[in-house]
Parts: sequence; C-alpha cells; structure tokens
Amino acid sequence: MDVVAQMKNFLEPRSVALLGVSRRTGEGTYNILEYLLDYGYQGKIYPVNPNAAEILGVKTYPHIADINAQIDLAVVNLPRPLVPQVIRECVDKGIKSIIIATQGFADATDDEGKRLQKEIDTFVKKDGVRILGPNSLGVANPFINFSSSFIQLEMSKVPIGVVCQTGSFFGFVESRLLGKGIDLGNACDINFAESLAYFEQDDETKVVALHIEGLRDGRRFIEAAGRVACKKPVLALKAGKSEHAAKAVQSHTGSLVGSDGVWEAALKQSGVIRVRSSEELGDAATAFSLLPLMKGKKIAVVTSTGGLGVMSVDACEQFDLELAKLSSETTERIRALVPPWHNIGNPVDVWPGYIITKNPLTKVWTETLEAVLSDKEVAAVLFIWPVPVRHTIERLHHTLVKLVEAYPDKPLVCCLIGAHAEEARAVLQATGKIAVFYTPDRAVRVLSYLARYSAFRRSF
Amino acid sequence: MDVVAQMKNFLEPRSVALLGVSRRTGEGTYNILEYLLDYGYQGKIYPVNPNAAEILGVKTYPHIADINAQIDLAVVNLPRPLVPQVIRECVDKGIKSIIIATQGFADATDDEGKRLQKEIDTFVKKDGVRILGPNSLGVANPFINFSSSFIQLEMSKVPIGVVCQTGSFFGFVESRLLGKGIDLGNACDINFAESLAYFEQDDETKVVALHIEGLRDGRRFIEAAGRVACKKPVLALKAGKSEHAAKAVQSHTGSLVGSDGVWEAALKQSGVIRVRSSEELGDAATAFSLLPLMKGKKIAVVTSTGGLGVMSVDACEQFDLELAKLSSETTERIRALVPPWHNIGNPVDVWPGYIITKNPLTKVWTETLEAVLSDKEVAAVLFIWPVPVRHTIERLHHTLVKLVEAYPDKPLVCCLIGAHAEEARAVLQATGKIAVFYTPDRAVRVLSYLARYSAFRRSF
Repeated sequence: MDVVAQMKNFLEPRSVALLGVSRRTGEGTYNILEYLLDYGYQGKIYPVNPNAAEILGVKTYPHIADINAQIDLAVVNLPRPLVPQVIRECVDKGIKSIIIATQGFADATDDEGKRLQKEIDTFVKKDGVRILGPNSLGVANPFINFSSSFIQLEMSKVPIGVVCQTGSFFGFVESRLLGKGIDLGNACDINFAESLAYFEQDDETKVVALHIEGLRDGRRFIEAAGRVACKKPVLALKAGKSEHAAKAVQSHTGSLVGSDGVWEAALKQSGVIRVRSSEELGDAATAFSLLPLMKGKKIAVVTSTGGLGVMSVDACEQFDLELAKLSSETTERIRALVPPWHNIGNPVDVWPGYIITKNPLTKVWTETLEAVLSDKEVAAVLFIWPVPVRHTIERLHHTLVKLVEAYPDKPLVCCLIGAHAEEARAVLQATGKIAVFYTPDRAVRVLSYLARYSAFRRSF
Repeated sequence: MDVVAQMKNFLEPRSVALLGVSRRTGEGTYNILEYLLDYGYQGKIYPVNPNAAEILGVKTYPHIADINAQIDLAVVNLPRPLVPQVIRECVDKGIKSIIIATQGFADATDDEGKRLQKEIDTFVKKDGVRILGPNSLGVANPFINFSSSFIQLEMSKVPIGVVCQTGSFFGFVESRLLGKGIDLGNACDINFAESLAYFEQDDETKVVALHIEGLRDGRRFIEAAGRVACKKPVLALKAGKSEHAAKAVQSHTGSLVGSDGVWEAALKQSGVIRVRSSEELGDAATAFSLLPLMKGKKIAVVTSTGGLGVMSVDACEQFDLELAKLSSETTERIRALVPPWHNIGNPVDVWPGYIITKNPLTKVWTETLEAVLSDKEVAAVLFIWPVPVRHTIERLHHTLVKLVEAYPDKPLVCCLIGAHAEEARAVLQATGKIAVFYTPDRAVRVLSYLARYSAFRRSF
C-alpha cells in the first residue's frame, strides 16, 4: 500500500475497531463510541469489550478476532501493559492502520515504558502495518464526521490541515478552526513526512499548519514540507527552543528538538512559513483558508480611526509591507466624501465622511473601498472599523461581500474593535471570503504571510 | 486651581453643559445627552440648543449664558467655525474646564484649521481655563457613570486608567476594560502630564495605560510618568515609529512623534513599561488590575497538556522568567497523584493524574496547585487547562478562588483553551483575583511585567 492510501486508512476509514471502549458514558468517561455517534460518523464501528454485548446500542465484540469484517483502522486506548498484545491481535486480524492513544511509553521515565515501546516498534511496517502514536489523540476529519480523539472535539469543515505533536491543537483555540488533523504523539512510526504526503494530495485542505517539537529524520521532513509548500502554504510552529524546553519535550513526546538555528534555516529554505506562537499559527491558517494570495507588498488601509491607522503603519514596517501610493483618481473619488480640509493619505481616514459630511456608512464604505480596490498599486486592503452598534453588522456584511466578490484577487482583511466585534467577526468569516482580526498588528501580519508566500510561489 | 482639582472638573464633574446636542436621538445621532441618561449620570446636565426647550425630558437652554448655575465642565461638539465663539461664551460664563470634541483644527490640512486652533489657544489658561481636545472623545468615568464621548461606551468599574491620543482606546478591544479614560485628541492644552497627575492621586486607579503618538514637551511627560511609576504601574504603547507613521500622526492629531530610540531610553529610565501593541497593553493592564506583584522571576507551570507546557518554557526564555526548581517535598506531593513512571518536572504535567490514575479533577488541581504555591522557590503560577466541557467551569472557579485567597501574594495566571475558554475566562476574571489568557505566551508575558515592575519598585 502506498503512503497516501495508508494515510487514507487513518483519515478516511470506512470501518473502525475501538479497543478499550468503556461501558460507561457521559462526562469523564472519554467514551469515543459516544462521540462518534454524536458526530454522525457513517462508517462501520466495531467496539471491543469482553464485558459487554452492546454499548450505546452498538453490537460489541469480546475480542478483535471475533469481528468478521474488513477493518480499515483500529484505535487502541487501553492501559499500557495490555497494548502490545492487542496490537498483535490487530496485526493478526490483518489490520494495517493502528492508532495508539495510551501514554507511558517513550514519554515515561521508567524502563518498562521503553521496553513496551520497543515491543510495539517490532510491529511497525511488518506486513505493511503502520502505527500512529502512542500518546496521541489520533486523527480528526470533519468531512466524514470522524475523530479517534478520546476527548470530544468541535470540528468544522474548514480547509486547514493540522499536524501536531500535542492534542491541544485539536482544540486550536485562537481561530477555533480545526479541519483535518493528525496528532503524532510520540511518533514511533507515522510522522510529519507521511502526514504531509496526505495533505499534499488532499483537495479538502488548502493550507497545512504544523506544530513541531522535534523529530528523528530532519532531512525527510524538510524534503516533504518543501514539496508540499510548492503546492499549498505550509505553516510551522517550532516549539522547544531552549535547553530547558528540550527537557520538557523529552518528557512530553520523547522527541529530539534539534538546534533552533538549523530549524530556522531549513524551514526558510523549503518555503515553509515559520510562525512564533500558537496564536500566529491560528491567524495565518485562518487567513490562508479564507483569502486569495497577494500580488506584491503594497496595501491600502481604510480606517475610521486615525489612531489604529497609525498603528497599522507601524505594523507594515514591522512585517515588511508597504503602504501603496494611491493614484490621484483614487484620491479624488475619496475626496468627494470628506470635508475639503481633510487630509487624504494612506491610511485613508474616512471618519469625517460620516461625522462631518454626514454620508451614510454604507456609502462611505463602498465608495472608499471600491476606490482603493480598483487602484492598480493596491494589492490588498486592510479595513479598520469600530463596531459601536450591533445593527451595523448586517450592513457591513452586505457591503463587504459585494466588494470581495467584485475584487476576488485582492485580499480584504478587517480589523474590528468594540463590544460587538466578535459577533461581526463570526458573521463576516462565515462568508468564507473575509478574514477578521481585532488588532491592526495581527491583521497586517497575516497580509505579510500572503505576500511572502505569493512571492515564494512566483520564485520558481 | 491646582492641576488635580482642575482634572477632577473633567473626570468627576458635578455639573456639565452640553454644547451641540441634537434634538434627534437614536442611531447615527451621536447624542451625548441620550447616553448620559442611559449611563445613569447623577450630576446636573445643561443641554444647550437654541431650537429646543427640552430634549429627552431635560430642560434645554438657548445659550450658555442662560444657565443660572455653577458649571464644572462644558462639552463642545459643534461645527468647527462655531467653536471659538462658543468657547468665549463658556469662558465668559466662568467655566474653567472645556472639552472640544470637534475635529478639523491642527489635524486639518487647511489654513482655516490652523487659524481656528490659534483662536482657541488664546483661551488656554486665561482666567484658569483649561481645554481638553480638540478632536477628542473627552473623558470616561464609570465610577460616576459619566462620559463626554459622542459614541456610546461600555464602561466598567475597573481600576485601569487610560490616557490616549485616539478614541479607539475608549473601546479598548482586547480586555474590554476601560476604567477611567482621558482622550487627549490634538492635546492643545491638557496633556499626559496633567492626566498622570490625576491618576497619581486617584484611589480608583491601580494601573495607568498610556497610548502615545507624540507630544511637545517630552521632559515634562517623563518627569510625570516617572513620578507615577514609583507609586503604581504605568504602561505605554508608543505608536508612530517610522517616518511614514510620523506623517500619519501629523494628519491624525498634529503631534510630533520624536525619535523612537529616545522614547525607548526615556521610558525605560522612568520605570514605565513599554508594550508593543494594543493587545499587549490590554493584557498587561488586565494583569496589573487583577494580580499581586511577583517577588522574583521564578514560576511554576501546572499543565494538563504537555505541548502547551513546552510552549510556556519557550515563553519564559523569551520574556526573561525562570522555571523554579521545585522542592523535593513539592515533587513528592504531586507524585502521589500520578503513575509512578510519570516524569515530574516543571512544567508539571498533571494529565496522567486524571486520565490514568483516575483522580477527580478538583483533587488534582487543588493538590498540585497547593504544592507549588506553598513552595518557597515559586513566585507565581501558570495554570494551563483545556476546558473541554462547560460544567467543569464552576468547579474550576470554586477551586481556584480558594487557592488565590489562601496565597494572596502569588499571582495565579491561567491559560485556558478550548471551546468554552471564553466563558471560563469571564467567570474567573469576575473574581477580580485571577487573570486568564488563551495562549501560554501571553500568560507568561504578563507575569514578566509583574516581575519587572516589582523589581523596579524594590530598586529604590
């Protein structure tokens, strides 16, 4: 079986055996069967438990050998001393793809953990068997309502593929976006290279977000990441930078962290975009999932608050973007909306257009944004708007959707502030075409990623 | 009148005249009278409008001269050509404190703006008159339900004093915390020095957050900021760093930005904590408003996810904090909760304590946190918890409140992730004693401010 077919067994199983499923359900029972039924997974489910004939109405088998069917994937969540024997039974049954959730192997301090890990290792690639984990939540695939996670997830059908070394990213807080996900855990077998090969060919994934603590084969990783980066954006958060952090990684997933300088150079060379925090990873993934790439470095800022306009200028400098010199045609179109004494630059401060010239909000928004979007110098637009009242949200939505549809090649990022900003963000991002942040810095930063990745794609 | 008494006229007026109040109410009318009634301001309100006998049930006066009462503060929001004449009328009436909301003076491109500004300037300090603005939302004081802002605000009685050069900070998005606020606008008279003098003596303000674009008298600012910083933390976001940003500032508030290097040195020397973004300003203000200072640099991290534990180690290095070496007594207390093979370091990963040893959540939280909080080496604690189910929030709240009450001298910061993290944050921060962030980086960053400010305070 080639690597992609194998990874499809993990990500898109048509049938799954659950080893270590409890008869208890509800809070604190971590009952994966309960979650699968709740998600609405449509594949075959074979729970295994010698003490039950059925759990939650699903026929349950005493042993894996009793299941008389083809099984794409086994999910093992049993106490560690039982794991090797169960893996053997899975292999004997002909199962080729196995997720081990259990922890206490390479991540443990005792010899028994290391011994058990070695026992598991003997099954890897024997008869084509591949193992994901141990110490892993496994996979998530919202497109088929499936996850092997023993913590219930909130998944959405977003085109963001996540490969991580901690299950925390299955709860990806900042953007609350988890599309397909692979938690490598201790990564005794399946690693970044295999995961990247899957996402490379996956049409449901537009951008790949990596959380890396360490790995054994840096060359293989860089080769795979570089290959994928030529087709779709690959983002990487490399955690575990210091010596102290390396120790923490050792006890977390048992990986080797490597020198941070080497990582920096290798990621850069392969076209992978390195981010510095989980927040940045979420922001960048959101932006790439929603927006077109950006042609060039020059942006226009349309703001209703001069103060945040100034901050966006600082951010452009910090993140290596430029403020476009607006054409005189653009400037004249905007001039018609504001008092004659008002300075029109870039950032364009449109506030006096409502408050002094008394134009309707939607007129100012539409005409200003249309002016800058149609300006040849402008590759992307940052729109800054404080959302003081809730009922402007619908008008904002209506106005912006028309504009992004008319200018599909220019990314539009909003910076919204005020008490109703979160509500507005939810409405605007639901369009699938507009990204929203709460500070000019973070909005400008994502534009810089779009520009950088676009330059990389044009460089070969 | 001394500067504090004068500033009290602005921040704590017992009577206010409103010049330029509309008969129209509701959306888009920016009717400050409507907002004052809505906030529940208990002082006397004197609306002035020659075309109305009453507005919203409040007796209205044709001219300021018709008001037969003592007036602490006048708020002027009229078209710019009318402003100098109205100021004259206020001065003639004996009003000493005047806010000018109107824009189009030093911030305008035309000569008329500059001429009008000069006319206003002639009234400054004449007969003790002081002016806040123009181009300003004025002040906010939630403790007396008062704001001069012509945009309706959501204020809360938090001990954060804000001095800013853009009204955006009156909608302070990140923390949604605005206690008392002063928007300097173009700052033709009242500036940072006066505002700092007010906050220095104000018992309702524990931390002062500054947004600075530029100013005329750097020495006076630094002297005032340094004086206040010896008594309470002063945070500063200096915007407008580059040459391009300086131009944007010029058209925003007409201030001079100065060299960024000079700012850096001057702020540092005066004990002011410089932050790099509005987000950081909000985070730091939140932390100082909720938490005790931190004695030393050594923290303990208690986490239920090893991955975020590793990131917190990276963050400690980035923000110059250290992970405490836990005492053997502390380690032994924690060891009783987890499997024998589990590595106990710092970060302390307590996840196996629930999932393998099957202890109740509250037992693991209480015993681990108590162990690290009572460890002499530990100056502060970061607690990382993914909040997978909503009904753990109440237990978390109950557990943590008891702990912070038992250890009032050690800051406890939480990093919460997952779908219910925002809800949990609201509950925990409402205690007034626990600060919550969504990433380990931001949680560690605020601890570093607590440590740094505490070291500064101990240095003299």
